Amino acid sequence: MLGPLHHVGYVVADLDRALAQLERSLGLSQVLREVMEEQGVEAVLCGGEGGQVELIAPLDSESAIARFMETRGEGFHHVAFTVPDLEAALHDLRARGAELIDPRPPRGLGGHLVAFVHPRSALGVLTELVEAGPAGHR
Amino acid sequence: MLGPLHHVGYVVADLDRALAQLERSLGLSQVLREVMEEQGVEAVLCGGEGGQVELIAPLDSESAIARFMETRGEGFHHVAFTVPDLEAALHDLRARGAELIDPRPPRGLGGHLVAFVHPRSALGVLTELVEAGPAGHR
Repeated sequence: MLGPLHHVGYVVADLDRALAQLERSLGLSQVLREVMEEQGVEAVLCGGEGGQVELIAPLDSESAIARFMETRGEGFHHVAFTVPDLEAALHDLRARGAELIDPRPPRGLGGHLVAFVHPRSALGVLTELVEAGPAGHR
Repeated sequence: MLGPLHHVGYVVADLDRALAQLERSLGLSQVLREVMEEQGVEAVLCGGEGGQVELIAPLDSESAIARFMETRGEGFHHVAFTVPDLEAALHDLRARGAELIDPRPPRGLGGHLVAFVHPRSALGVLTELVEAGPAGHR
């Protein structure tokens, strides 16, 4: 059901500083940058080819991401898989008894339809589904 | 320099139980299973198409993975990116001042040449490079 990996998400306090570190040490560069008010974050997609890492910084101290960072610190936050049809994937996940976080799919970075599976259903890892073409095109 | 994501690695106490959860909730199935004595682990590659998730369980309580799990619990362990030429990638990383964990590339799951970048050089995330074709073929 799940297609190729789409991206991994890291939570960071300072987007510019984090991007500078990944540029310097791994050669990643910015592909896309967006404020997503609804989620209370600003995000940068960066990578060598198309963007494989999403950096997420909280817009304020009240957002879910800010609370995550307070508890767990900076670093890995979620993994995202490509699915060709998000509605079909959600239907299948519900049938499997997987716990979904959003009642309705929000828009993710780059305008993709996305949905999140609760870590309880995925070995403790927050798991995002991104509706995108088979090669993960943006 | 880094190509597409190759897999994400989760550390688990019990491979069979973990695989059963991912099969039930996300529809992932086993692609490959190997004991890697040198690293002190047994690993399962699972996924929907080719395998995107590597489950890793310690073979004994002395391995690095066992110590990781004691401190951090089960869940996300590392992310792996595809590179077309591992030696060239390591040369580039050294030139960038990135901190590498292995002096010489070991063999990873499926017999790939792999190398690990220290979390200090990658925003706190253990980062693996896997020499594989451009589409991440195994």
